[in-house]
Amino acid sequence: MAPQSLRHSFEVFRDVAPLRNLRRQLLLTNRTVGLVPTMGALHEGHLSLIRQAAAENTDVFVSIYVNPTQFGVSEDLESYPRTWDSDVEKLEKLNDELSRLNGNKTDPKGQAPGRITAILAPTSKVMYPTLPPSSEIDADGSFVTITPLARKLEGASRPVFFRGVATVCMKLFNIATPDRAYFGQKDVQQTVIIKRMAKDFHLGTDIRIGPTARESDGLAMSSRNVYLGTRRRAVGLVLYNALKEAEKAYESGAVKRADILGAANNLTQQVLSEQQAMQPSERALYEVGYISLADPDTLDELDVVDPSKGAILSGAIKVAPVEDTKPGEDCGLGDGKVPVRLIDNFIFKPRV
Amino acid sequence: MAPQSLRHSFEVFRDVAPLRNLRRQLLLTNRTVGLVPTMGALHEGHLSLIRQAAAENTDVFVSIYVNPTQFGVSEDLESYPRTWDSDVEKLEKLNDELSRLNGNKTDPKGQAPGRITAILAPTSKVMYPTLPPSSEIDADGSFVTITPLARKLEGASRPVFFRGVATVCMKLFNIATPDRAYFGQKDVQQTVIIKRMAKDFHLGTDIRIGPTARESDGLAMSSRNVYLGTRRRAVGLVLYNALKEAEKAYESGAVKRADILGAANNLTQQVLSEQQAMQPSERALYEVGYISLADPDTLDELDVVDPSKGAILSGAIKVAPVEDTKPGEDCGLGDGKVPVRLIDNFIFKPRV
Repeated sequence: MAPQSLRHSFEVFRDVAPLRNLRRQLLLTNRTVGLVPTMGALHEGHLSLIRQAAAENTDVFVSIYVNPTQFGVSEDLESYPRTWDSDVEKLEKLNDELSRLNGNKTDPKGQAPGRITAILAPTSKVMYPTLPPSSEIDADGSFVTITPLARKLEGASRPVFFRGVATVCMKLFNIATPDRAYFGQKDVQQTVIIKRMAKDFHLGTDIRIGPTARESDGLAMSSRNVYLGTRRRAVGLVLYNALKEAEKAYESGAVKRADILGAANNLTQQVLSEQQAMQPSERALYEVGYISLADPDTLDELDVVDPSKGAILSGAIKVAPVEDTKPGEDCGLGDGKVPVRLIDNFIFKPRV
Repeated sequence: MAPQSLRHSFEVFRDVAPLRNLRRQLLLTNRTVGLVPTMGALHEGHLSLIRQAAAENTDVFVSIYVNPTQFGVSEDLESYPRTWDSDVEKLEKLNDELSRLNGNKTDPKGQAPGRITAILAPTSKVMYPTLPPSSEIDADGSFVTITPLARKLEGASRPVFFRGVATVCMKLFNIATPDRAYFGQKDVQQTVIIKRMAKDFHLGTDIRIGPTARESDGLAMSSRNVYLGTRRRAVGLVLYNALKEAEKAYESGAVKRADILGAANNLTQQVLSEQQAMQPSERALYEVGYISLADPDTLDELDVVDPSKGAILSGAIKVAPVEDTKPGEDCGLGDGKVPVRLIDNFIFKPRV
């Protein structure tokens, strides 16, 4: 994977020094860089972030690196989808699309959209040059920790996750020194933590958040969705539907926790009961990790939403492996054996 | 303290954004920046680092900030010397000296020495914009941790020290984005940790180490020496003398731990016994923290020095308060009541 090649419309970098040289040239010629950090397995969510980055910068850097330190020891590092060839193909197509836009565009400011200039696909030895990357909670190494944010929500069940995310992003930011970096709202806690990191460490990078890309029925796009298969995908939509119920309540004027989360919790419970009543060959079971209504800066749970501040509504469910598959059934990559954690969220904007 | 003023030969910055603007202008005009991070209370050691920075860069940034997170809860944050006016005066004199050098210099490359362009003297609210800086080991906040290095030597008795140092340096580096940053060899563990941080986080900054500045008798200069007074200063020299004994052994060909550290340990023990035999009004007592012979990269203790790699010889003693002062005796700032931790080291260069 990740071969250096001249046939691409972008350069592929496996190491830091040549990318730094490119970055310096861009800086000295007044061009701007937007970084889109990814772990590959690119989907429409990533592509929409890249489009946003291209609209706001002359040059887009995309990093593709499956970062070991953000996976817990019992998590899916090994099975995380790695799809280099199709990722590169998607990026090539996107550069074609951006060139056409560029050719057509008659922006009053004369601002043509940028394009993907560089892919950074480093090895783990490049990203972790001294000690090997560890997923142990008490591991030695060079880490960035952002607490208490990193212990909340996703962090409660994934104690090393945000240490890994903050650490790898600090490295990527130092390598690419982007003017702007792009993250999807789907990983809302990640956006809060990266913004906090940028503020507390005085990173000279503007953190930009792109909207969650969704399938037509509302399911949030995720690289892990390929593991769902038809049956679990249909049931997994309960998370989106539950959050929608809560959003409706907020939009109708509710501010109390019980009034906002009540309908959401009822729905997740009701769907689960329905599934439990079905045959193992028909049903998909799940556990609710959390349905949270939290302060947008501190992620502290809220009893009452301050409408002048808004809130973050978020949730996580873990869809269990398929118990009993039917002949010919599409159970997704891994034949339905991989448990799939789904997360989703809505931002409650201030009402004032 | 830290007033903005136009009478200086450098600009004083209390906040980040204006310094960033200056930095960007320097970058776009091909000038280079050397950062010298300090906690003020400037002495000849700091000044020699600034001279080195001026020789290697067109512009020198000096930061003056007493960083709370690197002081333990029972340490001397409150009493740490703060000497803004005399610091500024020293920096003004140094800029005069650099200008004269600049006028005289006939370097074959036409390279005149740089000068101090900017002082960064931020408030704690600027350096720690979200949570207040804490010295508690389990404090919440945004931190950089570099382990296991941070637990060794000084870190064994000062568990939050290097977390604080790494965190504040990461912030300063992000603010100043220096081409080079300068640290004194006296704080040898700090130099190892900052180099590790620069490598692991891909900081685009070259970490430069300047030699330990010493008094004429060999005592390593330190901002804390003002607390010693005559009597404790004389006895405190035992650390330097002990390390010198060990260095002599290495230079004579010794490679085994016992052969190198034996004479050093004998000397610290002998001087302590002599002091203990004296009257409280005459003596100064101390505790040896450690005398270490360690690998230069990992700081692991060595049984045998690999002459192709060399080693770091370092030590720490804690000089106790004066028990009984004599009339008219110079007991230093704080009247001899402040215990003073002294550290020193020698690098054993590879022999090959």
